[in-house]
Amino acid sequence: MHRDIVDIAGYMRDVGRRARAASHALARADTDTKNRALHAIATAIRHACEPILAANAEDVADAKKEGLEPALIDRLTLSAKSVEAMAQGVETVAGLPDPVGEVSELREQPTGIKVGRMRVPLGVIGIIYESRPNVTADAAALCIKSGNAAILRGGKEAIRANQAIAECVRTGLRDAGLPEDGVQVVETTDRAAVGELLRMNEFVDIIVPRGGKDLIERVMAESRIPMIKHLDGVCHVYIDADADVEMAIKIADNAKTQRYGTCNTMETLLVAESVAPQVLPRLCKIYREKGVELRGDERARAIFPDMNPAAEADWFAEYLAPILAIRVVKDVDEAMEHIARYGSQHTDAIVTANEERARRFLREVDSSSVMWNASTRFADGFEFGLGAEIGISTEKLHARGPVGLEGLTSQKWVVLGEGQVRG
Amino acid sequence: MHRDIVDIAGYMRDVGRRARAASHALARADTDTKNRALHAIATAIRHACEPILAANAEDVADAKKEGLEPALIDRLTLSAKSVEAMAQGVETVAGLPDPVGEVSELREQPTGIKVGRMRVPLGVIGIIYESRPNVTADAAALCIKSGNAAILRGGKEAIRANQAIAECVRTGLRDAGLPEDGVQVVETTDRAAVGELLRMNEFVDIIVPRGGKDLIERVMAESRIPMIKHLDGVCHVYIDADADVEMAIKIADNAKTQRYGTCNTMETLLVAESVAPQVLPRLCKIYREKGVELRGDERARAIFPDMNPAAEADWFAEYLAPILAIRVVKDVDEAMEHIARYGSQHTDAIVTANEERARRFLREVDSSSVMWNASTRFADGFEFGLGAEIGISTEKLHARGPVGLEGLTSQKWVVLGEGQVRG
Repeated sequence: MHRDIVDIAGYMRDVGRRARAASHALARADTDTKNRALHAIATAIRHACEPILAANAEDVADAKKEGLEPALIDRLTLSAKSVEAMAQGVETVAGLPDPVGEVSELREQPTGIKVGRMRVPLGVIGIIYESRPNVTADAAALCIKSGNAAILRGGKEAIRANQAIAECVRTGLRDAGLPEDGVQVVETTDRAAVGELLRMNEFVDIIVPRGGKDLIERVMAESRIPMIKHLDGVCHVYIDADADVEMAIKIADNAKTQRYGTCNTMETLLVAESVAPQVLPRLCKIYREKGVELRGDERARAIFPDMNPAAEADWFAEYLAPILAIRVVKDVDEAMEHIARYGSQHTDAIVTANEERARRFLREVDSSSVMWNASTRFADGFEFGLGAEIGISTEKLHARGPVGLEGLTSQKWVVLGEGQVRG
Repeated sequence: MHRDIVDIAGYMRDVGRRARAASHALARADTDTKNRALHAIATAIRHACEPILAANAEDVADAKKEGLEPALIDRLTLSAKSVEAMAQGVETVAGLPDPVGEVSELREQPTGIKVGRMRVPLGVIGIIYESRPNVTADAAALCIKSGNAAILRGGKEAIRANQAIAECVRTGLRDAGLPEDGVQVVETTDRAAVGELLRMNEFVDIIVPRGGKDLIERVMAESRIPMIKHLDGVCHVYIDADADVEMAIKIADNAKTQRYGTCNTMETLLVAESVAPQVLPRLCKIYREKGVELRGDERARAIFPDMNPAAEADWFAEYLAPILAIRVVKDVDEAMEHIARYGSQHTDAIVTANEERARRFLREVDSSSVMWNASTRFADGFEFGLGAEIGISTEKLHARGPVGLEGLTSQKWVVLGEGQVRG
């Protein structure tokens, strides 16, 4: 199971080398073979439900002994139902279209050569995550389906369950005739292993860190490998002068209160001055009834006095909690200036019936997802129709916003000729 | 013109800050405005032909004094004709479709929201290049058209001509009402400026190094910013057992001898053993007549004795010269193994009439461009129909192969709702 390893660097480099070697077979594997592996993994997970739960129970007992926060223990704890959900998640990925090998329209050039692009896997994906053991199954499934090898490094609090799930993944790969090293779950909880992973740029093509801000910051500081990640989710809803008031209230309520701890939850509400007197009293009453602490600028507090004063730091804050910053702005320009200055380029929404203003907002706000008359909570791979999500990226290069199978691939150019040479 | 700057770091950070500030206006600029700027730049270049040539003459005189190689002096030297070509190049970019703002098909999701992707500029592009002053105009045009700000750092041997061209670019931007800081040509030849540029990740989104291997290696070692680049172009042509011999000879001749110094020139020829006796004598005779030095493995030398023995280092070599390595292989598998081991993931071609083998080669060879029955010399933005090229990338993330306007952009998610909230 979880091994005591002395030479961490040597161990990790061996993991890297095996992943690179396995990646070639995964890249070549056809859709049927990959789907066969995924179905075999789902079956293995169902069969191993008991050992997975037993391993998880040990993890949870240790976590309680070490005094982990109840919220974390909650995220760590598996049940027969969540193990079944894990198996179903893997089957869902099997049902998604395979992006690999897809060739874009071949265009004939004046020389007669036909040029297109073929979608190909990236190679080896390193995923660093915390608590939730279901990420092990999810991430493995997404990497296999996109033809990539994966190195998974879960949190030490979940090591036993992660290893039990890893065993199911190996079984599935083997059953389909794919190399077991295609998905490796790091067997040591030593933090040095993460440092090693982040430096193995000859073996790892991209790093996906999933977790709290501390984890992401550490990965950003240490990694020599490109990342798919987001650091902050300071999301805004701007209620425009021409907003439908009922719609605005519904969206702003949902964007804040449907879930407090997610990265696409609204953290700052911006309201145009002309509608603030109609919108804020009703909306703030809803927030207060739900126990949301409000922190407003002077103009917001003049309209709804049951609000603390917002400090400069509030505009930068990702609360991930029932707290909301509120600012009254002159118009869409002031709203966009605010978002450009304080936002995190994650997800921002405008509520308005004015199409011209909406189009400006959609075009000019430089965030990974921009929305018109919809809740920021929709910024999610499933809601966007990707079928699954490996993470959300606020990077501009390669993949941006919710990242699914396509974001785990690249494109190469394909040229078909009939003997053409260059003149 | 070229200034003596004491505080290089302060100067470069100021350049970075100005570029970032200008990038917002460029990102928002509509197609007409950007095209107006490009046409104004072309006009300014034509008007400034004399001062550009005078500045270039001073550069060339200095370069000769410093004993620069004739080949480099040749690449540095401008003429009235090359200045006109520069202006026309800028006009060509004006004629290309504008990728910015393009929205992919909006797909309605089960919740009723419509989800698509909008193409947006990357922000600020840093370009580091050598010798050829025409890169200043080319790169400026591509960055403007793709809505990006640019910081251009040319070689010290071309500083005067680059500054003269920069003046034309500023004029064009100003004429179109765009910020002059949209394209800045670094005014110091101090090498420390490059180091600064590579570390300013808050101001620069991507670095494009164009030049020799020394330059690329330095940039790779120092950069904290993602790159569009290739280091080596060790390109292969594999002549399969089922190749049309006439076609194979034509392609292998062109891939090596059409130009020796380009990154998409073939450096190693692989020939299936069954056709080697028909292909090699005729092909090698052509090479020898053109003065190409041949370095072959034993089996190739047995067929064509006027050949030096190849050493292990030859299989890794990017000669950029009239030298060719030749190996006889068993079949397509051995050819692909050779390419995987010694190649640089740039451009590789198969010549065959066997479709199944060709499809395997296209799918399994992990290079930025893979070709069937065409010369590797086609790996080029113009030949691929991109209209222009900022460089060729052997990176897998973001942009791969010839990179045009699209490679200088990213995509953000756009969500259109009618008041939907997440359930």
